[in-house]
Amino acid sequence: MATQFDPPSGTRDFLAGEAEQREQAFDVIRSVFTRYGFEPLQTPAFERLDVLLGKYGDDGDKLVFKILRRGEHEASGEADLALRYDLTVPLARVAAAYGSQLPSPYKRYAMGPVWRADRPGKGRYREFVQCDLDTLGSVSVLADAEALCAQHDALAELGLAQFSIQLNSRRVLAGLLEAFGVPADLGPGVLITLDKLDKLRPDAVVAELEGRGLAPGTAAELVLAMTAPDAVDRIRAALKPSEEGAAGLGEVDSVLSLVSAQIPAGRIAFTPRLVRGLSYYTGPIWEVVAPGVPGSIGSGGRYDHLIEQLGGPDVPATGSSLGVERILLLLPKSGAPPRGRLDVAVTVMAEEFAGKSFALAAAARAAGLRSSVYLGSSGKLGRQLRWASDQGACWCLIYGSAEDEAGTVTVRDMRTGEQTAVPAGELGGYLSRAAA
Amino acid sequence: MATQFDPPSGTRDFLAGEAEQREQAFDVIRSVFTRYGFEPLQTPAFERLDVLLGKYGDDGDKLVFKILRRGEHEASGEADLALRYDLTVPLARVAAAYGSQLPSPYKRYAMGPVWRADRPGKGRYREFVQCDLDTLGSVSVLADAEALCAQHDALAELGLAQFSIQLNSRRVLAGLLEAFGVPADLGPGVLITLDKLDKLRPDAVVAELEGRGLAPGTAAELVLAMTAPDAVDRIRAALKPSEEGAAGLGEVDSVLSLVSAQIPAGRIAFTPRLVRGLSYYTGPIWEVVAPGVPGSIGSGGRYDHLIEQLGGPDVPATGSSLGVERILLLLPKSGAPPRGRLDVAVTVMAEEFAGKSFALAAAARAAGLRSSVYLGSSGKLGRQLRWASDQGACWCLIYGSAEDEAGTVTVRDMRTGEQTAVPAGELGGYLSRAAA
Repeated sequence: MATQFDPPSGTRDFLAGEAEQREQAFDVIRSVFTRYGFEPLQTPAFERLDVLLGKYGDDGDKLVFKILRRGEHEASGEADLALRYDLTVPLARVAAAYGSQLPSPYKRYAMGPVWRADRPGKGRYREFVQCDLDTLGSVSVLADAEALCAQHDALAELGLAQFSIQLNSRRVLAGLLEAFGVPADLGPGVLITLDKLDKLRPDAVVAELEGRGLAPGTAAELVLAMTAPDAVDRIRAALKPSEEGAAGLGEVDSVLSLVSAQIPAGRIAFTPRLVRGLSYYTGPIWEVVAPGVPGSIGSGGRYDHLIEQLGGPDVPATGSSLGVERILLLLPKSGAPPRGRLDVAVTVMAEEFAGKSFALAAAARAAGLRSSVYLGSSGKLGRQLRWASDQGACWCLIYGSAEDEAGTVTVRDMRTGEQTAVPAGELGGYLSRAAA
Repeated sequence: MATQFDPPSGTRDFLAGEAEQREQAFDVIRSVFTRYGFEPLQTPAFERLDVLLGKYGDDGDKLVFKILRRGEHEASGEADLALRYDLTVPLARVAAAYGSQLPSPYKRYAMGPVWRADRPGKGRYREFVQCDLDTLGSVSVLADAEALCAQHDALAELGLAQFSIQLNSRRVLAGLLEAFGVPADLGPGVLITLDKLDKLRPDAVVAELEGRGLAPGTAAELVLAMTAPDAVDRIRAALKPSEEGAAGLGEVDSVLSLVSAQIPAGRIAFTPRLVRGLSYYTGPIWEVVAPGVPGSIGSGGRYDHLIEQLGGPDVPATGSSLGVERILLLLPKSGAPPRGRLDVAVTVMAEEFAGKSFALAAAARAAGLRSSVYLGSSGKLGRQLRWASDQGACWCLIYGSAEDEAGTVTVRDMRTGEQTAVPAGELGGYLSRAAA
């Protein structure tokens, strides 16, 4: 039940383990992207309102979180800033702002929260992390293949066991419309309907196509070509006479050939029915899907005119986006017991020995271990051992009057309960060896 | 000059090198804090408006970025959310929300941007990263000493060469007011004025104290006690008769003794004139200063009632905060030339060899190196070598018809210009050895 102390609707608090798992996943992704020569870009959480509005359509504009003007202008009830809605509009702004200071091509990745005032729901948040990789300034299909491979490698290194990549090209789709004689004005609508072939039954799609004004024969032929067991061959044959279609096929085959050394053959396939909803794509497009996960966990494609439409310079562009929030839900929970907060817990048996205990924790940290003293008020060993256990510590150090007299530290193995008297000066070495 | 493409006033874009340096510094801090057993906490960028307002005083409230209500409520011009202003109010909310699910004591760190609608200026931003470490639920001076040591270690590991820590206790200050017979109602004002001793001349502080109604003799005595060459001895002597003062001295001495094994003696000193502006501190307080830097680069202290005042449970608390933005400006710029974007740049000499070049880049990555193919349109070797050089690459791989016939790759050492023919199958091993 929501209480006044919950985070705002659609947002989350990440405590200890979850925060750590997220940070680790982000590190893996960063390291893969860096290996491909992509450089990081971090932009502010908010942009000027005019930079954002009008870029996401009317529906998108409604989901933008707007920030009220400040000071004497607050009473106006007007906004002048807004939280970023994605990482692409900020990229377009940066491309416009820094222009020739950026390397060419400009290969950048960005990873950070974006905000959308969507209705919150299962797996749908108002604050969520996006993770984008884009290359501005290259028309080469090598750039498309690179964006795809970097995305693939990130998923593989995150430990995702099962996923596959559907590949198509917008030019294949344009060629198809041409080959099947779809009137130009019906084209965009027909593509939107064909995009539903992964969710709707073929006859429902045919019906919707007819509803859009497509001749019944054409609608049935088109859907059959895309759903038949030999769909890929049918489509390849149908596309050959179309210049645009042949060019699209060429793109698809180039990408397939380029990635073949890195992406296992069964994991990527030409998928003629893949449309991707967004109209701005101009070349190869792809989606990454995982069994049991509705929608995609990643996507990408070439979008040669979008950066200019978003207010940036007129540069060709291609890129990919990882659905990190969905991916984080899929990651195998480590089989090993979660690493505790501490490796070495240090008791404080009496105030007079507190300084010694504090120094023992420092010695354990100097040996590369996570360590802290007991900060509670109980002087009872049993109580402090329970604390050590709650911290997930492997060892508990005990230092009281007996140890003080003997010049030793009692090292208790928390798994076995076995206790060893270690000369105080040798503690660091002892713990290093024990932890190795 | 500001253009329409600049980030909003008071915010910054971080490109390549700067973004990497920041990320690396954050990693160092995270790793030190983790070693002390502090766990991460990540809260949303915004909170409900009622959670934030009234917590920072009237001046603070004016600096909060408020978010307009959405949908049909947008026209009301009202706000219901606000960007977080610090990391402490979210901590209080989390302590209230998760209560007994949190470990006790709850040791957490948080690092992330906060937003304040301050007038932007040199080194003052509207979006900046805060980095806090706090322990809730322990009254032990060990917790204070731990917060101080973790902060110290983070600064040391970041490579900060020169900094020192000024230590005091609020109870020392209370004892001083008592020892010098300052009327209770003048106490808070007197402390605010004494806090200016690091900026104003002593006689100016005396004058201000008199202006607050303090007897001229008392004002002069108090300032002399705090500024004389033997100030520390004078203060120690003056505090002895005061119960509160003696307790405060005890706290200071306990902290000094606890940290002595870790913090070099010359780096930390009892500093009676240290007040810290914020009235919520209740025990030990400290500031970290660096030569040539106005203000502090870190601070901390015990604040036993603040969490409750901020809407959380009534728990004792202590913590420290690193001024990461200032610290980042102080970090030594690495003497070594900045590492380039790529280790291995791969030319694309002809379309027919593009696939081979793409696979060579993958082989270099598999050897742990950062590598990418040329994505431009020039087929000229000179042009591509210039690109390789711009990328800061150590090696450039060349694969054309000669190499294709010979079954080799030409590996060019970009520093010497020396070229070696390496059998294609041995490239990974060759590069690994060369990079070692």
